[in-house]
Amino acid sequence: MNERTILTISERTTIRRLPELASHDRATLYCIVDEAYVCHIAFGTNHDTHCIPTAHWRDGDYLYIHGSNGSRLIKALSAGVQASVAITLLDGLVLARSAFSHSMNYRSTVIYGQFETVVSSAEKLAALDVFMDKIAAGRRHEARPGNSREINATSVLRVSLAEAAVKVSDSHPSDKEEDLELAVWAGILPLKTARGTPIHSDGSENVPTPDYVKNWAD
Amino acid sequence: MNERTILTISERTTIRRLPELASHDRATLYCIVDEAYVCHIAFGTNHDTHCIPTAHWRDGDYLYIHGSNGSRLIKALSAGVQASVAITLLDGLVLARSAFSHSMNYRSTVIYGQFETVVSSAEKLAALDVFMDKIAAGRRHEARPGNSREINATSVLRVSLAEAAVKVSDSHPSDKEEDLELAVWAGILPLKTARGTPIHSDGSENVPTPDYVKNWAD
Repeated sequence: MNERTILTISERTTIRRLPELASHDRATLYCIVDEAYVCHIAFGTNHDTHCIPTAHWRDGDYLYIHGSNGSRLIKALSAGVQASVAITLLDGLVLARSAFSHSMNYRSTVIYGQFETVVSSAEKLAALDVFMDKIAAGRRHEARPGNSREINATSVLRVSLAEAAVKVSDSHPSDKEEDLELAVWAGILPLKTARGTPIHSDGSENVPTPDYVKNWAD
Repeated sequence: MNERTILTISERTTIRRLPELASHDRATLYCIVDEAYVCHIAFGTNHDTHCIPTAHWRDGDYLYIHGSNGSRLIKALSAGVQASVAITLLDGLVLARSAFSHSMNYRSTVIYGQFETVVSSAEKLAALDVFMDKIAAGRRHEARPGNSREINATSVLRVSLAEAAVKVSDSHPSDKEEDLELAVWAGILPLKTARGTPIHSDGSENVPTPDYVKNWAD
């Protein structure tokens, strides 16, 4: 492995709680960012600290978001405030034999950085195409493209993934030695994001159903 | 409805983007908090703003968290720093006929406040019992209870749900009038949290399987 596959560690991304769960594998980071549709962004304004959810996508070593120019999130991040972006995929509840050894399985990342604004319309559109490919591969060739008014009203921002902590918990409960013989069920109750049957809007019964809709449901 | 069922609105919890999606129904807030296992908490330390995921539960009009006394999250929140707690349940991708009208369906809340520490061991244990009931009803009577060392090493904190913004998007795409006739599939690709088949740990094949395990999977 080399610097392209290993994440560097900063003071802020050093995992102190359960450091054995830390991952420094860039591929794991990318998988977490790509699998999740929504991240949570922490940022401060003059008086307050905020935690705001928003859709995200990835291109190369950047996490992208978009939003209306006027939103509080976009205005604060565009001004260059330091931000922290968290993405969490919950994989299960971990039931141990003792109450205090219960835990959860998850894959998570916390990214630190300043967002930068994607300025040119061409770059904004290229970034939004990557987002559309994440939502539904091929759909960017079907939906009506944005016009200049829509593009100008929307901000696209990105933050580098250079300073990211990654933590993965994927294990059975770790009961203490003296608890192992207790007659208490121990194990994992798995959780996952599932995809339900698509619901078409009025009028769409008359247009061809794209493969990404046909193949959506689990 | 009265003050018990209607949420009051502060400057920080006034929803400015898509205000028609704001909910001021306390029952909706409680449902969102109760359905999710993990929240994201934004807080500032001397130099940085952080966004940290953690498990949560609710009792009455408070959101509770717990953690090791020494963790950065617990230390900062115990010191009374202003925090923002976000919970987001993603219900689907909303595919519109035009690229810029795509959206998502979700139920979310952003809570503002200062956490307070639950000090007495009895109150901590009572709070953790509520958490265990959320994880698996009845399990608190089966698992080995915490001992004084475990209880003392764990902090339990809570924040009032008094200042909470709630936003719910649950709709078909809202395409512009002039886009409605485009031959583009429009509709909803549903997402939900699903429960997989429980996985027992070594030794648990010999103990009775509790109903909350038998009935776990969807």
